[in-house]
Order: sequence, then structure tokens, then C-alpha cells
Amino acid sequence: MTAGHRAFYKGRRVLITGGLGFIGSNLARELVALDADVLLVDALIPEYGGNLFNIADIRDRVTLNISDIRNESITNRLVADREVIFNLAGQVSHIDSMRDPYTDLDINCRAQLSLLEACRTFNAGVRVVYAGTRQVYGKPDHLPVDEHHLVRPVDVNGINKAAGENYHLLYSQVFGVRASSLRLTNVYGPRQLVKHNRQGFIGWFMRLAIEDREIPVFGDGSQLRDFVYVDDACDGDVFNVGGERPIAHADLVKMLVAAAGGGRVTLVDWPAEKKRIDIGSFYSDWSKFAAATGWRPTVDLREGLERTVAFYREHLSQYVDAA
Amino acid sequence: MTAGHRAFYKGRRVLITGGLGFIGSNLARELVALDADVLLVDALIPEYGGNLFNIADIRDRVTLNISDIRNESITNRLVADREVIFNLAGQVSHIDSMRDPYTDLDINCRAQLSLLEACRTFNAGVRVVYAGTRQVYGKPDHLPVDEHHLVRPVDVNGINKAAGENYHLLYSQVFGVRASSLRLTNVYGPRQLVKHNRQGFIGWFMRLAIEDREIPVFGDGSQLRDFVYVDDACDGDVFNVGGERPIAHADLVKMLVAAAGGGRVTLVDWPAEKKRIDIGSFYSDWSKFAAATGWRPTVDLREGLERTVAFYREHLSQYVDAA
Repeated sequence: MTAGHRAFYKGRRVLITGGLGFIGSNLARELVALDADVLLVDALIPEYGGNLFNIADIRDRVTLNISDIRNESITNRLVADREVIFNLAGQVSHIDSMRDPYTDLDINCRAQLSLLEACRTFNAGVRVVYAGTRQVYGKPDHLPVDEHHLVRPVDVNGINKAAGENYHLLYSQVFGVRASSLRLTNVYGPRQLVKHNRQGFIGWFMRLAIEDREIPVFGDGSQLRDFVYVDDACDGDVFNVGGERPIAHADLVKMLVAAAGGGRVTLVDWPAEKKRIDIGSFYSDWSKFAAATGWRPTVDLREGLERTVAFYREHLSQYVDAA
Repeated sequence: MTAGHRAFYKGRRVLITGGLGFIGSNLARELVALDADVLLVDALIPEYGGNLFNIADIRDRVTLNISDIRNESITNRLVADREVIFNLAGQVSHIDSMRDPYTDLDINCRAQLSLLEACRTFNAGVRVVYAGTRQVYGKPDHLPVDEHHLVRPVDVNGINKAAGENYHLLYSQVFGVRASSLRLTNVYGPRQLVKHNRQGFIGWFMRLAIEDREIPVFGDGSQLRDFVYVDDACDGDVFNVGGERPIAHADLVKMLVAAAGGGRVTLVDWPAEKKRIDIGSFYSDWSKFAAATGWRPTVDLREGLERTVAFYREHLSQYVDAA
């Protein structure tokens, strides 16, 4: 965060939806350090990333409300006095969205309307930052991908996240809510869900390395991605937020195994279910966001992996089910 | 329809969702003439365009099932033996979508998933033609608008219709359903809803002209649109389907008044609620669809208006509430 951000957030009334999740809880920690007045809302839906342990060390410095933003009357109350909302609540598994598109629709579309209707009706001037995703671009026409690239999602999750983003922009243009969307690339770091492998590969690979297990890389591992360490992602219009440089899966896993001192790479064939919605290589052009805010990634991938390994080595039992 | 289409549809088992509506009922009439086996499904939701009178003259040549495609178990049954589905069920009012975004979401997203899940599970090879809309483009960057134009809708209806269209393309790419989407421009003709003015202006203007009332044109009436007569709209990937040439609102209304021999133009200020979601001029480039299918508009605007006036002059009482 910049110095301007530090002054801005002191005493600021902030709401984080999905506040017990991976990005939400890391953001809460940053905001607490800036003396913001932090309200966390989370539904603690099983199988999703919310975890009370994520805020154990800041529990007495935040207000926590366990509720679901789809509940309109509760959400109306919670947004009313807030100045800034980080809207991070969502279903993020691509595979789950293909198996159960209705739940994905309910959480990534209906819940977003519930939050925005609450803002429109009870707090129209509020600032809202929506957690968008690179997934809305689908399989890229060219690399790196900037914000002029067509939105052409290749799974139900991407379609619904695109609609959720569009609602934010629309309520901004039409109803005076000041919303923007950050299209985040692959975010990694402490407090990410590692219980199962359906919310992106990086958290899962981290767990496999720490448990000294085989790490399955699909195909030849040449697909590129960029990664952003979670502290770097916590800083209206649409902005890409990406990593310093792209790296192939195979190289990422080598670096992870080195950082963890455990785990072994295995190249495996693509499972059909995943291959059908794979997008090949992806990395983003985040120069628009850098120009607008001065942001840039500061945590090098090797260092970020080492920090994350250290965190999970100490706390893994809080993130996996008892054996 | 081309000769190829005529041979194709003889005895073909076709389902039309929204089959009692404006486009659905006109399409049903065409398919009956081609000796297709036509099943119509419609929920007859009040305020929407479904009207039993629309099929009064072909009632004994179609099968009608009054049901809502959101009901999954019923929809599973209805799609199972069909060879072609024209998926026209939808909420089409932009203004209603801004007042009640949840209902628009339920009908334009959840219902589409219900239909597509039924196809995926019980009839994966079925052909599906989805009624898309030019509304997904929002305010155009350039005219005419072709399919490479960014999808950037400016109202809740446009956002949800874009998601509904994307589901169709996704189920086509991933699950073997053979779906395409026709992005229709302003369609007009007999059997359109004229009960209220929340489903596009052309039907409403038609009624005002026939009732010899004032016809309110917003602003200076210079905004351009293209129009397609409903018989021309009834013939995978995404295709624009548009009119022969654009015409300004003011000129359209002059032509309508001449055709109806009634009504008077009044220029009025834009209502704020409508101005906020207005897109200025719009007309589409439909050359991709023409190249793929040989389709082109055949009913000239003046002739189409005259046919439509003649229809409503005879049957208006079937389309308006008793005074």
C-alpha cells in the first residue's frame, strides 16, 4: 500500500465480504495495521475458503458477522454505515461450477445483486472493489492480456464472474455506487484453501510439497501463468492485477519443491474434465492498474513461496481435515 | 426459409420455448407450414408476451405444454425426444430488469441453465438456437456493429442475456449440445406484446398509431435503429441478425403514422430512467449470418409496417386489456 492509502484507511469504516477467506483475511490484517474499522462478513460455507483460524491473531481488532450476503435484509443492515466495501465473497472453483452451475449462479450472480441492491438503496455513494478474475478472458488471443481483450469465458464460473463484474460496473454508471473490478491472476500465499484441489492448483501444490507427496503437472508442464503474492493483491473501471513475469507450471513446481525441501514432480495426462475448460498459457498486462495507482508486485515468486511454505509448515493442521 | 430448410423441417421434432410469445408463435406458424412436429412450451407469465390467441389459428397442428423451463424435472421430459430447440423463453424488458434484477436473473440465467442441463443429461446431441440480442453490445464503439465488437451491456437485462448466451456456447463446446445464438436486432410484426410499453418501443408505437394517439419520441428522434420483420427472423456460433438499413426514430414514426393513417408524433424529453441505459444509435452488420446461411431480410420496412398495422387493426382486442 502507498502512503496515501495508509492515511486514507485510518479510522475508515470498511466491510470485507468473504472476510474469513484467503484474500479477505490477508486484506483484513493489512487494514487492521492501518487502524481501519474492519467489519468481516462470511457465510463459512463448507468446502469454501472461509476459516476462523485465518483471523485468529487479529480477532480482537475486527468485527465479525457470520452471515450470507444473499440474505437481503441482513446485508442491507451491514452495508449501511460502511465507506468502503471489498467484495470478495464468491465461489471460485471452475470444476465445481461445471458440476453444479446453479450454486455458482446463486453465489456469483444473485449474491452480487443482493450486495449491490443494498448499496443502491441504503448507501449509494459507497466505494466497492470487486474481486474479478482473469478467468473472464477465457483462452487468450494474444499474450500478455490487457483489458481490451474480449471477455469470452470458457466455464460457468467465468461466465457468472463476468456477469457479477458487469453488475458492479452498471451500478456504478447508473446508480452512483462507486465500484471497480480487479481482475486478479493466480494469487497465492498463506491462508489459502488447501483442503481439496478444486480451487486452483497453487494452494494444492503447496500442500503436496509440504507433505512431501507427488505433485501432478498436467501435460508437459509448459503452460505459462503469472502469480501474485497475496499481500500485493491487497491494494473504478476494470483493472488487471498480475504477477511480475510468467513462469511455466513445470518450473514453478521445481521452485516450490526447492522452497519446501519436499515433494516430487510427476507429469500426468490431462484429465478430460479439466482439459475441456483449460485455457493454455495466460499472463496479464497490468500496466493500466500500475499507471492508475502506482501499484506493482513487490514480492518475488521465490520469496513468496518460501513465506508460504513457512506458514503452512507451522499451521497446516488448521487447513486440512484431521486424517 | 430456404429450400434446404424446408426439406430439413418436414416431420422434424421441434421444441419452441416461449412458444406462445411474439417470435415463438410466428416461428411455430412457419414450422407448421413445413410439416414439422411442433411442441410449444410457455409459462404464460403475466406481463410477458405469451398469448394463447397467438396460436389460435394453428392450435390443432401443434402440441402445447404450459410449463416453466425453470422446473427441471418437467423440462427434462420435454427435451428428451426433440431434434431442434428454439430457445426463445426470456424476460425482455430492460426497464423491468433494472427495477427487479432478481427476476431477470432467474429467467434469463437460471432458466437457461435448466434447459441446457436437461439437454446435456438427456439429449446431448440436440441442436439449440438461442434468441440472443443486440443489447449485449451496449453502446456501440462503431457502426455497423459486427460480432467482433466487445460485449459490454449497459443494463441488467443485457448482462444476463450475455450470460445466457455464453452458457449456450459453453455447453456446445464442452458437452456436445449443438447450440448457436442469434443476436436479434429490433424485431417487429404481428403478435408482439402491445399491452404495455416496457418491452421495446416498436410494438407500443404500433398500438398508439392504431389507436390514433400521440407517439412520444425521445430527444430529437435522430437515434438510428435497424428493424427486422418477424418472418425474416425465423430462419452454431454467434450471429447478428439485423435489418436492411438503419432509420432514425423520427422517420420510423412518420412511416408508421402513414401506414396506420393515425397517431401523431410528439418529441419529448428523455425520462431519466431510460436515458441512463440508452445506447444512442445502433445498427448491426449481419454479413456473417448471411454468408453462413444465405439469409437476408426480405420484407421491406414499409411493407412490414403495413402488414403489422393490418393485423392489429383486426385483432387489437386480443392484445390489450379490456378498458
